[in-house]
Amino acid sequence: MTSEVKQKARLAQEAAAVMNRLTTEQKNAALLQMADALVSGSEEIIAANALDLERGREQGTSPSLLDRLALNVDRIGGIAEGLRQIVSLPDPVGAVLEQFERPNGLRIEKVSVPLGVIGIVYEARPNVTVDAAGLCLKTGNSVVLRGGSAALESNRKIIELLRAALAGSDMPVEALQLIEDSDRASVNEMLKLNGLLDVIIPRGGASLIRNVVENATVPVIETGAGICHTYVDAGAQYDMAADIAFNAKVQRPSVCNSMETLILHEAFAERHLAQLAQRFIDANVELRGCEQTRALVAAAKPVTDEDFATEYNDYILNIRIVADLDEALAHIRKFSTKHSECIVTEDAGHAERFTQEVDAAAVYHNASTRFTDGFEFGYGAEIGISTQKLHARGPMGLPALTSTKFKVYGNGQIRG
Amino acid sequence: MTSEVKQKARLAQEAAAVMNRLTTEQKNAALLQMADALVSGSEEIIAANALDLERGREQGTSPSLLDRLALNVDRIGGIAEGLRQIVSLPDPVGAVLEQFERPNGLRIEKVSVPLGVIGIVYEARPNVTVDAAGLCLKTGNSVVLRGGSAALESNRKIIELLRAALAGSDMPVEALQLIEDSDRASVNEMLKLNGLLDVIIPRGGASLIRNVVENATVPVIETGAGICHTYVDAGAQYDMAADIAFNAKVQRPSVCNSMETLILHEAFAERHLAQLAQRFIDANVELRGCEQTRALVAAAKPVTDEDFATEYNDYILNIRIVADLDEALAHIRKFSTKHSECIVTEDAGHAERFTQEVDAAAVYHNASTRFTDGFEFGYGAEIGISTQKLHARGPMGLPALTSTKFKVYGNGQIRG
Repeated sequence: MTSEVKQKARLAQEAAAVMNRLTTEQKNAALLQMADALVSGSEEIIAANALDLERGREQGTSPSLLDRLALNVDRIGGIAEGLRQIVSLPDPVGAVLEQFERPNGLRIEKVSVPLGVIGIVYEARPNVTVDAAGLCLKTGNSVVLRGGSAALESNRKIIELLRAALAGSDMPVEALQLIEDSDRASVNEMLKLNGLLDVIIPRGGASLIRNVVENATVPVIETGAGICHTYVDAGAQYDMAADIAFNAKVQRPSVCNSMETLILHEAFAERHLAQLAQRFIDANVELRGCEQTRALVAAAKPVTDEDFATEYNDYILNIRIVADLDEALAHIRKFSTKHSECIVTEDAGHAERFTQEVDAAAVYHNASTRFTDGFEFGYGAEIGISTQKLHARGPMGLPALTSTKFKVYGNGQIRG
Repeated sequence: MTSEVKQKARLAQEAAAVMNRLTTEQKNAALLQMADALVSGSEEIIAANALDLERGREQGTSPSLLDRLALNVDRIGGIAEGLRQIVSLPDPVGAVLEQFERPNGLRIEKVSVPLGVIGIVYEARPNVTVDAAGLCLKTGNSVVLRGGSAALESNRKIIELLRAALAGSDMPVEALQLIEDSDRASVNEMLKLNGLLDVIIPRGGASLIRNVVENATVPVIETGAGICHTYVDAGAQYDMAADIAFNAKVQRPSVCNSMETLILHEAFAERHLAQLAQRFIDANVELRGCEQTRALVAAAKPVTDEDFATEYNDYILNIRIVADLDEALAHIRKFSTKHSECIVTEDAGHAERFTQEVDAAAVYHNASTRFTDGFEFGYGAEIGISTQKLHARGPMGLPALTSTKFKVYGNGQIRG
C-alpha cells in the first residue's frame, strides 16, 4: 500500500507540471482567493483551533507555546493579509537571467524556473501553514506541508479552505498537500523522497532542524538556528553599544536573530559593564559570565562552554570579556552558527576586519542583529533565514524558491 | 585519536580563514606556480603513475580504465595548461551583488564570498585532482580531496608537488588536502563532517554519487549522472535528426551528456528508422528497441524498463517509438535524470512545449545534447555538471563555488 506521504507527494509532483505553466496573473488570482477563503472561514478555523488548544492544555503545553498556537479573528486577518502581500511581490519565475549566442550559432538562455515540489517540515505555528503555502505557490512550486501534531486540527481546516479556494482557480488543487499522519515516521519518510521532492525546508527549533539535516537524502535548505554574538570593542560609545546589545537580547528573545552571547573588550567592560549588567538585570535577564565578568557583576552565574553553544531563545545572556579583537573572533569562530554577528566599534579597521573575517549570513557594524529579516532587508515575506552556504544565505525571499534551466536553440549543431 | 580525515579537514578550515583574505593576484600567482611545478615534476609524476598502472594491471583493471589513469608528458602538460586557463577566468569572489540603503539608514551589501571548505570525492582520474584543486583554490576555498585508491600514488605525488609550490606562495599550504586513507570508511567520514566541510561534490559514476547523496549530512551538489534523451518529431528533417542523434550517442559515449535513449515519432520512424539504425549498427552501436522498433529493425534486441533507467556510457542505444509528443514527454518524465534533453522538430509550438515542460538542467531544440559543458557554454573550466536544482544547475563554473554574505553598516540602529 502506498503511504499517505508518497501518495500526496506524487500528486504534488504531477501538479508541478501544471504549476510550471501558470502565468503570474493566474497565480496571484489564486492567492487572493486563498486569502478571502481564510477570512470568510475564520469561524471554522477558530473552532478547529479550539480543539488543538484544548488538547494542548490537557497535555500541559506551556502558555507560551499555547499562545503561538492560538488563532483569533485578528490573527487570521493578519495571516490573510500576509498572502495579499505575497501577491504584491514580483514573480521571479520566467526571468531570463542570461542570454547569449555562441560562435557556432547556438543561442543559449538561462531562465528562472520553479524548484518543483517543496517539502516544509515545521512545528506548531499554524501561520506557517499559510505563509509557506503562499510563498511556494507564488513561485510556481507544489508544496507538501508537514506541520506539528499540536496544530493538526487547525492545519486541516486551513488546508481544506485553501484547497477549496484553489478549486475555483486556475491553480491545481493537488499542488497544495498537507500530511496528516502525525507519527514521526511520516517526517522521516519525507526526508528520503528523492525523485518526488526537490527540496526540504525545515522551520522550527534546533532539534527539528537537526533531525532533518541528519536524516534527509533530499537536498535541504537549513534554516534558523542562531547563536548570535555582539562584540563591543575597546573604544565603543557606551550608549550606542548598550542600546544595540539590549535590543539584540531583549526586544524579542525567542527569535533566531536575537543575541545569546555578549563579548566585551576588557577596556570597555571595566568602565561600563556594571552599568550595562544592571540594565539587563532590570529587564529580568539572567546573566552567565566568565571569571572576569563575575568579578565585575556579582549577580552573574558561571558560564560553561555548553552555555556558549546553546541557543537559549530566552531571557538568558552569556557574557565574556576578551583582551582583543582576535580573541573575540576566535570565540565567534568556535561557537557561531553563522547566522548574524555584530561588532560595535568606532575603529574602521576593526569593523573592516570583523565584517570580512566573520563567516556568517549577516555581519553588522554598529546595528542590532535583530535586523536579519526579509521585511527589514526590504525583500518582503521570507520562507526562513538560511544558515547554510549553498543556494541561499540569510533571509530567503521568493528567488530562493526558484532554480534555473538552460534553453539551447540550434539549427542542427553537433559537437566536433 | 583524531582520524586523518578530521585532522586534515580542520587544517583546511583554519586555512580557509586566510584564503578568504587573498587577492585575485595572490591566488593567480599561486596557481601559476602550481602549473609550473607539475611540468617540472613530470618525471616524478610519471614514475608514481607507473606504480598505479602496474597495480591496476595486476588487479585486472580494464584497458579503458587504465587509459583514464595513465599520465604522460603530454597529458601532464595539458593538465598544467588547464590550471593556467583557470588563472585567466574572472574571480567571482568579492563582487558586490547588491547594494542598497534602507529607510532607517542601514546600508546593506550582498557580497560574493568563498564557500569555505569543499570536499571532493572522485574516482581514478588524476586530472580531477588538479582541476578540482585549481577551481576551489581560485575561488578562495580550501579543498579536501578524496580520490580513488587506484590513483593513490599518482595523486600523492601530484599533491606533494602542488603543496611545495604553495609553500613558495601567499596561499596557505594547508588549504590543499589529500585524504590518503583508501578505506571506504574515510569517504563516509567525510560525508558527515558538518561544521568542518561546507559542501561535498561527488565526481564519478552513478554508484559513487548514490553513496554520497544517500549518506551525506554535509550539503551535496549532485553531479553527473545523465540518462539523456533525443526526441525526433514527426516532420523532422532526416539529415539534421540523424546527425544530432548520431553525434549525441557516438561522438563520446562515455560522458554524461551523451544520449542513452532515442525516441522517435512513429511517422518519422516508419520513413527513416531503417536507414538511421544502419548508421548506428555500422558504428558498432548495440540497439535495444520497443516492439514497434523491432518490427522495423531486425537487429534490435528487446528493451526493458531497466534499460531505459540505465546510464550505459557505452555503445548501446535504446530506441522507443511513440504516437505523439505527449507520449515522448511522459517517457522523459519517467526516466530522465534531468541532465540534458533534446527535441528535433520543425514545429515551433512543439519546440516551445518541450523546452518549457521538460524538467532538466539543459533542454535543446535542434542541437546535440553533447553541448552541455562549461567550455561549450563559454564559461570555461567546470567542477562538474549539476543535476540538482539547488544552488547550481547545469555546467558549474567558478560562481558555483561561492556563497554570499550580507554586510550591514549602521550608526546605532535598533529594531523597534
